[in-house]
Amino acid sequence: MEFLAAAIAVGLGAIGAGFGNGMIVSRTVEGISRQPEARGALQTTMFIGVGIVEVVPLIGVVLGFLMFFQA
Amino acid sequence: MEFLAAAIAVGLGAIGAGFGNGMIVSRTVEGISRQPEARGALQTTMFIGVGIVEVVPLIGVVLGFLMFFQA
Amino acid sequence: MEFLAAAIAVGLGAIGAGFGNGMIVSRTVEGISRQPEARGALQTTMFIGVGIVEVVPLIGVVLGFLMFFQA
Amino acid sequence: MEFLAAAIAVGLGAIGAGFGNGMIVSRTVEGISRQPEARGALQTTMFIGVGIVEVVPLIGVVLGFLMFFQA
Amino acid sequence: MEFLAAAIAVGLGAIGAGFGNGMIVSRTVEGISRQPEARGALQTTMFIGVGIVEVVPLIGVVLGFLMFFQA
Amino acid sequence: MEFLAAAIAVGLGAIGAGFGNGMIVSRTVEGISRQPEARGALQTTMFIGVGIVEVVPLIGVVLGFLMFFQA
Amino acid sequence: MEFLAAAIAVGLGAIGAGFGNGMIVSRTVEGISRQPEARGALQTTMFIGVGIVEVVPLIGVVLGFLMFFQA
Amino acid sequence: MEFLAAAIAVGLGAIGAGFGNGMIVSRTVEGISRQPEARGALQTTMFIGVGIVEVVPLIGVVLGFLMFFQA
Amino acid sequence: MEFLAAAIAVGLGAIGAGFGNGMIVSRTVEGISRQPEARGALQTTMFIGVGIVEVVPLIGVVLGFLMFFQA
Amino acid sequence: MEFLAAAIAVGLGAIGAGFGNGMIVSRTVEGISRQPEARGALQTTMFIGVGIVEVVPLIGVVLGFLMFFQA
Amino acid sequence: MEFLAAAIAVGLGAIGAGFGNGMIVSRTVEGISRQPEARGALQTTMFIGVGIVEVVPLIGVVLGFLMFFQA
Amino acid sequence: MEFLAAAIAVGLGAIGAGFGNGMIVSRTVEGISRQPEARGALQTTMFIGVGIVEVVPLIGVVLGFLMFFQA
Amino acid sequence: MEFLAAAIAVGLGAIGAGFGNGMIVSRTVEGISRQPEARGALQTTMFIGVGIVEVVPLIGVVLGFLMFFQA
Amino acid sequence: MEFLAAAIAVGLGAIGAGFGNGMIVSRTVEGISRQPEARGALQTTMFIGVGIVEVVPLIGVVLGFLMFFQA
Repeated sequence: MEFLAAAIAVGLGAIGAGFGNGMIVSRTVEGISRQPEARGALQTTMFIGVGIVEVVPLIGVVLGFLMFFQA
Repeated sequence: MEFLAAAIAVGLGAIGAGFGNGMIVSRTVEGISRQPEARGALQTTMFIGVGIVEVVPLIGVVLGFLMFFQA
Repeated sequence: MEFLAAAIAVGLGAIGAGFGNGMIVSRTVEGISRQPEARGALQTTMFIGVGIVEVVPLIGVVLGFLMFFQA
Repeated sequence: MEFLAAAIAVGLGAIGAGFGNGMIVSRTVEGISRQPEARGALQTTMFIGVGIVEVVPLIGVVLGFLMFFQA
Repeated sequence: MEFLAAAIAVGLGAIGAGFGNGMIVSRTVEGISRQPEARGALQTTMFIGVGIVEVVPLIGVVLGFLMFFQA
Repeated sequence: MEFLAAAIAVGLGAIGAGFGNGMIVSRTVEGISRQPEARGALQTTMFIGVGIVEVVPLIGVVLGFLMFFQA
Repeated sequence: MEFLAAAIAVGLGAIGAGFGNGMIVSRTVEGISRQPEARGALQTTMFIGVGIVEVVPLIGVVLGFLMFFQA
Repeated sequence: MEFLAAAIAVGLGAIGAGFGNGMIVSRTVEGISRQPEARGALQTTMFIGVGIVEVVPLIGVVLGFLMFFQA
Repeated sequence: MEFLAAAIAVGLGAIGAGFGNGMIVSRTVEGISRQPEARGALQTTMFIGVGIVEVVPLIGVVLGFLMFFQA
Repeated sequence: MEFLAAAIAVGLGAIGAGFGNGMIVSRTVEGISRQPEARGALQTTMFIGVGIVEVVPLIGVVLGFLMFFQA
Repeated sequence: MEFLAAAIAVGLGAIGAGFGNGMIVSRTVEGISRQPEARGALQTTMFIGVGIVEVVPLIGVVLGFLMFFQA
Repeated sequence: MEFLAAAIAVGLGAIGAGFGNGMIVSRTVEGISRQPEARGALQTTMFIGVGIVEVVPLIGVVLGFLMFFQA
Repeated sequence: MEFLAAAIAVGLGAIGAGFGNGMIVSRTVEGISRQPEARGALQTTMFIGVGIVEVVPLIGVVLGFLMFFQA
Repeated sequence: MEFLAAAIAVGLGAIGAGFGNGMIVSRTVEGISRQPEARGALQTTMFIGVGIVEVVPLIGVVLGFLMFFQA
């Protein structure tokens, strides 16, 4: 049951991170293609947003590894 | 069962945080690409919103770690 | 079973809060990027709405902690 | 089983309240950004609607606490 | 099993009421922001609709409390 | 099992009634905001439709109460 | 098991009737708000359609009551 | 198990008939509101389509009653 | 188990037939309302398509009756 | 279990065939209503597509009957 | 269990083939109705695409028959 | 259990391949109908994409046959 | 259970790869049909993206074969 | 159970990575087809985003292999 729990934590985290980052980066790419001169501001905002989105999935990854080595 | 509960708490939190932050940051990036001069106001609002969205998932993360070390 | 219940309460609350706040804040950011002079009124409305949305998930969080320490 | 029931009641209530209030407040913010002079009327309607939407989830919260202390 | 039944009745009622009222009130807010002079007629219709939507969820709440005190 | 059946009957009825009435009333509000002079005809049609939509959920409510007192 | 069957028959019937009638009546209301002079023809068609949609859910209701009193 | 089978047959039939007829009749109402002079041709086509859509759900209803009285 | 199988065959067939025929007939009605002079060609195509769509659900109905009388 | 397998094969085949043929025929009807002079070419393409779509569901029907008479 | 496996293989294959071919053929019909002179090129591409889409479901059908006669 | 595993591998592969190839080929057909002179370049890209999409489902098919003859 | 695990790994990988590659290639085909002169740059980007998308499903395929021969 | 956990971790990771990368690369291809001169900036952003999206699924892959060789 520990392995299944670790798999669920990492799997759901991958889905959440994939969709969240996909929305942010794809919209950033769209913004740069419209206004190439605003590339710096957009990428800065993108990095902030991507970092925030990754917080919870990465903790889930840490939790998954803890569960794996605890088992 | 404790590990599974922790995995569900963190996993669902990652999905909620991913979608919520993805909507906010992607819309902020879109707004900055349209009006680069409103970058400060948009980022301030983004930080407030992102902080509010992260509250419940982070508590879920804390709860997940508590469950993990309690088991 | 108590841990699973706490995880479900916090997890579903995170999804509800994530989507609800995501809609509100992203629409607020969009509104500010269109009319930067209405920033005060939009943020005031946003804070009210975000506070209301967070009520039920936060109670779910409280209930989850109660379940955790009761177990 | 009592804890699981309380978690389901609060969790589904959080999802319902989150989506319902999210739709109302985000549309209100959009309305204020279009017509800032109608802010009073829009916020009054928003408060009425938000109050109505919160009725059933809050009763679910009360029911959840009753189930918790009954167990 | 009685508690679970009460939780399902209240939870599904909260989802139904949240979506139904959210659609009605958000559309009313949109209508007022377009034509502020029709505020009275729109709010009257909104109150009628909101009242009708709340009938079945409130009965579900009553049924849930009956189940709770019957158990 | 009787309580669960009553909860399912009332809960699904609440979802059906919420979505159905939400579509009707929100579209009626939109129609009134476009043509305030057709308010009478629209509300008459709305009452007919809302009454028809409520038939099956209300019978489900009656059936739920019958199941509750039969148990 | 009889009660659960009756609840499923009535509940799914309520969802089907709610969505079907909601689509018909909301579109009728939209049609009347566009052409108030065609109100008679639209309402006649609406009554025919609503009657046809209600056939199967009402038979499900009858079947549900038969199951209830048979049990 | 016979009652549950009858409920599933009638319930799924109600959902199929509700969505199918809802699409047909709502589109017919929209067509009449655009061209009131083509009301006859549209209603004739509607009756044919509604009759065809109702075939399988009504057979499901017949099968459900057969299952009910067989049990 | 035989009754449940028959119910699933007829129920899924009703959903498939309802959606398929609903799409075809509603689009035909829309086509006739745009070009009333092409009514013959559209109805001929509609009858062909509806007949093809009904093949598999009707065979499912036949199979369901065979299962019913076999049991 | 044989009957359930046959029902699933036929039921899922009905859903697949219903959606597939519904998309093809409804788009064909739309095409004919736009260009009545291309009716022959469109119907020829429609027959080819409908025949290809029906292959797998009909084999599922054959397999279902084989399962039925094998049991 | 062998029959159930064969039914799932054929049923999911029917859904995949139905949606895939439905998208391809309906878009081809739409293309021919816009440019009847490009009918040859469109149908050639359609046949290639339809043949590729049918590969995996047909192998699933073959596998289903193998499972059926193996049982 | 081996047969069920093979059926799931082939069935999910059929869904993935059907949707993926359906999107690619339908968009290619749309592109050719807009610019018939770019038919060669579009078909070349289509063949590359279709081949890449088919890789994983075909391996799933191979794995399914291996499971079948292993059992 | 090993076979089922391998089937799930390959099946979900096929769905993920099918949708991901379908989006990329279909958008590339659309881009080439709009600007045939940018064919080289688009195909280069497409190959990079397709290769990245295929990484995780191919590892899932490898893992599935390892599970198969381990069993 | 270890194999199933590894399959779930890799499978959900493949879905998340497929959708996330699919959104990013398809939007990048669209951007390059609109502004071929911004190809460098868009691809740089694409590589950053794709790398971030792949983090969690690749860790899931690593975790899956660890589970596989641990079993």
